[in-house]
Amino acid sequence: MELDKKMLEEGEVFSPRFNKDGLILAISQEEKTGEVLMAAYMNQEALQETVKTGRAVFYSRSRGKLWRKGEQSGHFQKVRKIFTDCDQDCLLLKVEIDQGQCHVGYKSCFYREVLDDKSLKISDEKVYDPKEAYSKTNGESGKQS
Amino acid sequence: MELDKKMLEEGEVFSPRFNKDGLILAISQEEKTGEVLMAAYMNQEALQETVKTGRAVFYSRSRGKLWRKGEQSGHFQKVRKIFTDCDQDCLLLKVEIDQGQCHVGYKSCFYREVLDDKSLKISDEKVYDPKEAYSKTNGESGKQS
Repeated sequence: MELDKKMLEEGEVFSPRFNKDGLILAISQEEKTGEVLMAAYMNQEALQETVKTGRAVFYSRSRGKLWRKGEQSGHFQKVRKIFTDCDQDCLLLKVEIDQGQCHVGYKSCFYREVLDDKSLKISDEKVYDPKEAYSKTNGESGKQS
Repeated sequence: MELDKKMLEEGEVFSPRFNKDGLILAISQEEKTGEVLMAAYMNQEALQETVKTGRAVFYSRSRGKLWRKGEQSGHFQKVRKIFTDCDQDCLLLKVEIDQGQCHVGYKSCFYREVLDDKSLKISDEKVYDPKEAYSKTNGESGKQS
């Protein structure tokens, strides 16, 4: 049942609106520092597993399956709080991480600033060696968008 | 020309990857506090106008046109910095806002926490009256997802 606009926006019933592909956007933010870490999609199963386990689980569109963040690298996201936006088509996860979480080796995926001349400036330093992290499990490195 | 993975992820060339609908995700975060405000999409034109004017411009999928944030409510987002993520399919805008920016009246669109029982708890207070803000311009209120 579709909630009416008032209920959707101001009500107290969680009614996540998955898109036509069955996905909802989820943004991970480090609770402690407020740093935005990454954005990815969840399907219903990923959201359920996230709530149940307290670890962020996304849905990999490129691989067509659940993406248990940290399963390969060991860098899990412990989900402390979940927020929904006004029209409930986007989630914000307040998470705790051990170290980095971007597969390139940075803490956040947003490690480059776009400058006026359209060049990118690296604005952060790597916090772990992705080669080492991913070799532990023979996992496949790379962002699973 | 598609950049190779290494260049895309570690290079210094801004090469935003718009999806098949010509859109890229953009997250707005208040620069001063780190608060995540909203997430929406941009097309190439919206991104260009954002860079040129320094004010956040999105693309409204529901209305099929540019969405100049604040045009109706007066609550603009001044874009101070733009970051791109590892595979350049998501942008993070560090913005300055005057007051609120969510059309419901809150500062951030993420004003409700999802509790364990799937109910929502309002975790913020309204900072402006949307009826008043939107009536100024006879604009249409509502999130333009």
